[in-house]
Amino acid sequence: MDKLNKQIDFILEIDKLKTVLRRSMITDGSRRENSAEHSWHLCMLAVVLSEYAPEGTDISHVVKMLLMHDLVEIYAGDTYLYDEEGNKTKAKRENEAADKLYSILDEPQGSELKNLWYEFEKCETSEALFANALDRLQPILLNYTNKGTLWLENNVHKNDVEEHAYRLTRLSHPKLRKFALDLLDKAVEKGYIED
Amino acid sequence: MDKLNKQIDFILEIDKLKTVLRRSMITDGSRRENSAEHSWHLCMLAVVLSEYAPEGTDISHVVKMLLMHDLVEIYAGDTYLYDEEGNKTKAKRENEAADKLYSILDEPQGSELKNLWYEFEKCETSEALFANALDRLQPILLNYTNKGTLWLENNVHKNDVEEHAYRLTRLSHPKLRKFALDLLDKAVEKGYIED
Repeated sequence: MDKLNKQIDFILEIDKLKTVLRRSMITDGSRRENSAEHSWHLCMLAVVLSEYAPEGTDISHVVKMLLMHDLVEIYAGDTYLYDEEGNKTKAKRENEAADKLYSILDEPQGSELKNLWYEFEKCETSEALFANALDRLQPILLNYTNKGTLWLENNVHKNDVEEHAYRLTRLSHPKLRKFALDLLDKAVEKGYIED
Repeated sequence: MDKLNKQIDFILEIDKLKTVLRRSMITDGSRRENSAEHSWHLCMLAVVLSEYAPEGTDISHVVKMLLMHDLVEIYAGDTYLYDEEGNKTKAKRENEAADKLYSILDEPQGSELKNLWYEFEKCETSEALFANALDRLQPILLNYTNKGTLWLENNVHKNDVEEHAYRLTRLSHPKLRKFALDLLDKAVEKGYIED
């Protein structure tokens, strides 16, 4: 099959990300967020908060990674950060999903895009570190706005969020770090999360 | 108020784009697409189809524009391409919306991001031309996949789509142009759209 037809097949296949539901609710509390709109939102965070990335971070590359970072969920599903069982099999499921999905495209494009996902997962470059930090920050913002419903329902405590947000707190600009930690303190005060 | 707090307010405000519904259905036909996931999908088209952009096009800039291009709909609503009445007032409504939305941010960031939207709307740079072409192409792909339900329901004819996709057909790579026109021919053959 011709290269462009495969690219269009890929574009239509990834439309399915719009049907993968995450745990977080959107800010109006009306429904759960899907992984496609979540990816868009993270890219917007990257652009708007770019000044808090480590010096020299290539924000365009962060955005490209964030566009792709959840695509494997089309076959592997979304694994909740606090789902211990699901997280044991996550890497294997997602690797298989990546092989299946990116092989729709011709080479070298398939591997090039798959490598962006690997880079995000390995979380070693400044770009991947900042992308992961935003992926931790965004649900905190949504859950806080929704008065912690998700945290309370799932019995998630403040130190769980802090631990999982470790990359965020360690690697981002001190201002962004302080903002996230202060928000968690406010969440405790307001009864949105348990201490 | 501190700059970062305004940026976070902006990030939470734009979450509303997830509740703005477009006319097109997602590929599984289960529901209408929202403008946030649509924006994500367009960015993916920009990355995957980058080789069909005019030579020298800065794809990172295309992506940045596409991330923002629908934000004004949060206040102005989505205006259907074939809604004549709605399109008469679209520019005014969207300009007011842009002023309101981007003024949440401090300067110069507010103006910088608003200018990306202006650039998209003016559609003069190669980046804006390619971004607009993709914004025309994506609904054709979705509507074709859904067997033209939307076209048939709204009595949209093949020449309407061709006319509105003019920018796409004129300005993209000949291969992408041919693909879109062939797809419309196939849609006529299959009875998904009227000739």
